[in-house]
Amino acid sequence: MTVMQIDGGIEAQARAYQDQLTKPHGALGSLEDIACWFSARQGKINPDDLNPHIVVFAGDHGVCEEGVSAYPSVVTGEMVKNFVRGGAAINVLSHRCHASLSVVDVGVVSDLRGLHGIVHARVRAGSGNLLREPAMSEAECAAAIRVGREQARLAIHAGANLLIAGDMGIGNTTASACMICRLAGALPESVVGFGTGVDDAGRSLKVEVVTQALERISEIPDAQVLRQVGGLEIAAIAGFYLQAAESGRPVVLDGFIAAAAALAARMIEPTVAGWMLASHVSREHGHALALDALELSALIDFKMRLGEGSGAALVVPLLQSAISLHNEMATFESAGVTEKTDEQNG
Amino acid sequence: MTVMQIDGGIEAQARAYQDQLTKPHGALGSLEDIACWFSARQGKINPDDLNPHIVVFAGDHGVCEEGVSAYPSVVTGEMVKNFVRGGAAINVLSHRCHASLSVVDVGVVSDLRGLHGIVHARVRAGSGNLLREPAMSEAECAAAIRVGREQARLAIHAGANLLIAGDMGIGNTTASACMICRLAGALPESVVGFGTGVDDAGRSLKVEVVTQALERISEIPDAQVLRQVGGLEIAAIAGFYLQAAESGRPVVLDGFIAAAAALAARMIEPTVAGWMLASHVSREHGHALALDALELSALIDFKMRLGEGSGAALVVPLLQSAISLHNEMATFESAGVTEKTDEQNG
Repeated sequence: MTVMQIDGGIEAQARAYQDQLTKPHGALGSLEDIACWFSARQGKINPDDLNPHIVVFAGDHGVCEEGVSAYPSVVTGEMVKNFVRGGAAINVLSHRCHASLSVVDVGVVSDLRGLHGIVHARVRAGSGNLLREPAMSEAECAAAIRVGREQARLAIHAGANLLIAGDMGIGNTTASACMICRLAGALPESVVGFGTGVDDAGRSLKVEVVTQALERISEIPDAQVLRQVGGLEIAAIAGFYLQAAESGRPVVLDGFIAAAAALAARMIEPTVAGWMLASHVSREHGHALALDALELSALIDFKMRLGEGSGAALVVPLLQSAISLHNEMATFESAGVTEKTDEQNG
Repeated sequence: MTVMQIDGGIEAQARAYQDQLTKPHGALGSLEDIACWFSARQGKINPDDLNPHIVVFAGDHGVCEEGVSAYPSVVTGEMVKNFVRGGAAINVLSHRCHASLSVVDVGVVSDLRGLHGIVHARVRAGSGNLLREPAMSEAECAAAIRVGREQARLAIHAGANLLIAGDMGIGNTTASACMICRLAGALPESVVGFGTGVDDAGRSLKVEVVTQALERISEIPDAQVLRQVGGLEIAAIAGFYLQAAESGRPVVLDGFIAAAAALAARMIEPTVAGWMLASHVSREHGHALALDALELSALIDFKMRLGEGSGAALVVPLLQSAISLHNEMATFESAGVTEKTDEQNG
């Protein structure tokens, strides 16, 4: 499979259409860019309204035994139950942006087999400790990627035209930091953040763990970074992004973990980022670096560091507003409004 | 009248409540601040959902005869008609954020008396040419302020708990630039922008007009800046903000013109900015300077420069999301989620 082509011709036509709307040229700033971005990807001068679907992928991390997180691994499973009961941030935000929501166990340590309302696709009960061993075998990593691909296919089949992946996994900022350091060419000191809320000593420990993990894989090729120092939910998100791009559906990236998964997806398919919009820049160190490496610009900076897809879901109303403005505003001609007095640059 | 007191005790209780929600402390970043900001102003730990009302105030500017705008003054009236027919950006955005919308003629040159669907409150057919004479007499300025106050009172009486003022007035970036230079203590070169889209020569002319207008009023006290170099719709917006603060209703500021009006309102009542949230930072030069002077931080930077209240309306869904998260998320206790493993800063 290959990534779907983006229609530059339609984008140019959408731009020309924008300039007929009753506002000074360019006065809607980023909103004009967003509308035309969707035009090019939907192949329509007037893009359809958004029908977003959010999938939260949950998995645990063996590296937690090194003490890198402020919360114990049991919280991953507890939060999955919170998602099912509707009490988490992503529940509120998916409701606010009229998105449907799925939750997938791709590798939670707690036994969730009896839990209704989630997708049971556990590849393994938590990843290996990336400090000392590969996080996943090759077969496990491939299986996790397939889980993500399958979720994207299902959402698209159900009519979604905008896909969002969220993450839940205690310890996953450590895994993501390893991946971003290696794939964006940055140092642990610049990339490692406070995660769910470790203190300065906790962060120093994380920097040390990431540094040693990177040493462990220093002779291993980039293509293996995901399985060596990633995680099950991160691999699933990478697969989700790959399938979205191959099926020609835009994705909105969330934060730090999403960026690590996006970098992994780009290792597999270099043009995948053409289908990605960056929602927010996280407070987690190194997220901005990862977005730079992906050549993406975040829409907002709200100092969030939650994951779950929360930042991506938050901006969906802004994206829909951009499309609604593009489609619903009057033109100078239809409204009988006088255009500029003379030819001026603007 | 005086500005309503803000309840710091409730704000502290709202903060404490935020820390019980199922997320790492502070992980929702600015969204937590926004929810608590509304808690303090509504006097409720769990603030009510937003019921926004938008008023677009329209007026013309005598200074247009100096050639400071890319569009002729007739466009102000034409755009008012576009608002009535629902074809403008603010129509689309008010619909998107479930806001009611009023349009007020406070000083349009075109004769709109026969137009249904707007509030007819014209104080004068366009302001005086601020380069050569006061924009308004004292009586006219006071009347325009009263128009804005009355619109705020009506909206509050109808149940609005969030007020937004928009502007429509060809030439009003020149008036606002004069006000911001004088009231924020900045130079025309830093404040004057491209408005609706003049070219570099047009901007140089604007800088010169603003410089000379500021010279004309250099011996006149700050309290007269609004009437000397402002405009009818800017005075109305200042009155709207004053009434909102006196009635204890938050406002969301739009862009450059809104900031000029906010500075004028603060001249009249120094604590009025406590009731203001800044939505976006405009592409118009000097808006960021004006927000600094108001000690406000914008939520987003979308490079917009439209007015009409568009930037303020755009962010309303973000504000509502902040409130919904605050009110609807589960607590650690109610969800049975384990809290942090030990006392760590985070």
